[in-house]
Amino acid sequence: MTKKILLIVLIVLSVTFVSGCTNLAKDFSEKFGNIEKPDNIESSAESASDLLSSETDVLYQVSTIDALLQGVYDGVLPVAELATHGDFGIGTFDGLEGEMLALDGNYYQIKTDGIAYPVSGEMLTPFAIVTYFEADENFRLEKPVNLTELENFLDLNLPSENLFYAVRVNGNFSYIKARSVPRQEKPYPKLADAVSTQSVFEFENISGTLVGFKAPEYVKGVNVPGYHLHFITEDRNAGGHVLDFEMENGDAAIDITSEFFMELPTSGDFYNVKLGQDLQNDMEKVEK
Amino acid sequence: MTKKILLIVLIVLSVTFVSGCTNLAKDFSEKFGNIEKPDNIESSAESASDLLSSETDVLYQVSTIDALLQGVYDGVLPVAELATHGDFGIGTFDGLEGEMLALDGNYYQIKTDGIAYPVSGEMLTPFAIVTYFEADENFRLEKPVNLTELENFLDLNLPSENLFYAVRVNGNFSYIKARSVPRQEKPYPKLADAVSTQSVFEFENISGTLVGFKAPEYVKGVNVPGYHLHFITEDRNAGGHVLDFEMENGDAAIDITSEFFMELPTSGDFYNVKLGQDLQNDMEKVEK
Repeated sequence: MTKKILLIVLIVLSVTFVSGCTNLAKDFSEKFGNIEKPDNIESSAESASDLLSSETDVLYQVSTIDALLQGVYDGVLPVAELATHGDFGIGTFDGLEGEMLALDGNYYQIKTDGIAYPVSGEMLTPFAIVTYFEADENFRLEKPVNLTELENFLDLNLPSENLFYAVRVNGNFSYIKARSVPRQEKPYPKLADAVSTQSVFEFENISGTLVGFKAPEYVKGVNVPGYHLHFITEDRNAGGHVLDFEMENGDAAIDITSEFFMELPTSGDFYNVKLGQDLQNDMEKVEK
Repeated sequence: MTKKILLIVLIVLSVTFVSGCTNLAKDFSEKFGNIEKPDNIESSAESASDLLSSETDVLYQVSTIDALLQGVYDGVLPVAELATHGDFGIGTFDGLEGEMLALDGNYYQIKTDGIAYPVSGEMLTPFAIVTYFEADENFRLEKPVNLTELENFLDLNLPSENLFYAVRVNGNFSYIKARSVPRQEKPYPKLADAVSTQSVFEFENISGTLVGFKAPEYVKGVNVPGYHLHFITEDRNAGGHVLDFEMENGDAAIDITSEFFMELPTSGDFYNVKLGQDLQNDMEKVEK
């Protein structure tokens, strides 16, 4: 079920969501104080051996990718809280309703119409990955690359295969294919089945930002090994989970992330779902 | 190479290490303030959905088990810092020199003579797992159990297979077999080879405490799936990595731990070691 949503249609249809989109991290920070950097981590860094990170590069994750693959879609953490752990990231929402993307502290929900809606702090997520994005390395890409070529280029420039990386790419795309997934009803299907009802959007000649992460192979079962990217247009009106693209040129930035924090649900479906199985086939259906 | 170290010999040989053993967490706390509970986690908990933990149950881990299996033994974190993340746990030291055990805020190094030495804050660890132990559930075991039977008993009483648990068992043992590993020289051998030089101790009719964790299957590659227990005698003079036992009776306590924090080394051997392979065979050699 591929819909072709052209840029011109989006411009006509969309109101300016960007202006209405709450900066949740900022709001939360004003309300509760600036609490994104735990005291103990800073203290640790100050006296740490130089073999350990001197920055607060924490990737914060809610639940596990395998729980999501197995159909654990009930939201467990409010976005207002998630936003205290990062201004940049990806995820999904209660009932698997749409793709989450956070950029510059703004959280968006990309629904099956391809439109990026603002997110309220009360909305819950069953799975998300966020960090505070601070570019450690920047790369200018002058020549056209597709998704695989971009991944290969970044791989050559990462300092180690064994760390996490946040990846942000501002690019001009001749073509980009993205998807979103509709809200699921209980009993929840597995993710590999749920994505069969996904909506796919194709954009042409559009500028925007890729937002996501690269995780090391050894976290299979916990996170998505390799790259996991979402996309949002430059006007922040549309996007989705990235399936494919041709990027004419762009600016890539990576944030080396050596600390990983995982918050597990302490009740609900997560408690009884069978995890620890090999879900490689499911993962491939879901990510491609 | 099995040495039989009888209790009586230990009593004769050992000076009272326990009295000399620094309470590192306490010292650090007095020096830098009480920083074991990050502000943001407490804040999160206050407003969290009740599906998420309302306690600060963070398992803090340095590096990954697979890196240790592959021979990454250079210490990266001082014990003084590790102790700010927990008063209870297990691990090893720079160069794989002995077994680490932390109990009630006291950190011990059990060397190949089977003796539990006090640990200075400057000593480095390449791999460790600690938490602040707060018992969530207690069980009285009146009948004799061996290691497998204890694990099976606990498994029946855990609320979910998908969380982490800290496990503490104060028991009277008719028999217990433990080991420690000598300091390794570079180029470091793999852990499965290093343990071939281990010293094994057998204790009879001794009281003491099992200290360790149960990790879920899906963290294979990151942590040890299943149980990983170290032992220390009631007088805190001897112990090791647990290989086998017969416990006459005891008191088991588990601390349900739903938050996982992993601190990865940001240089050294960790950067280039090949991870993400199936090291199941190595793991079995090492843990049994």
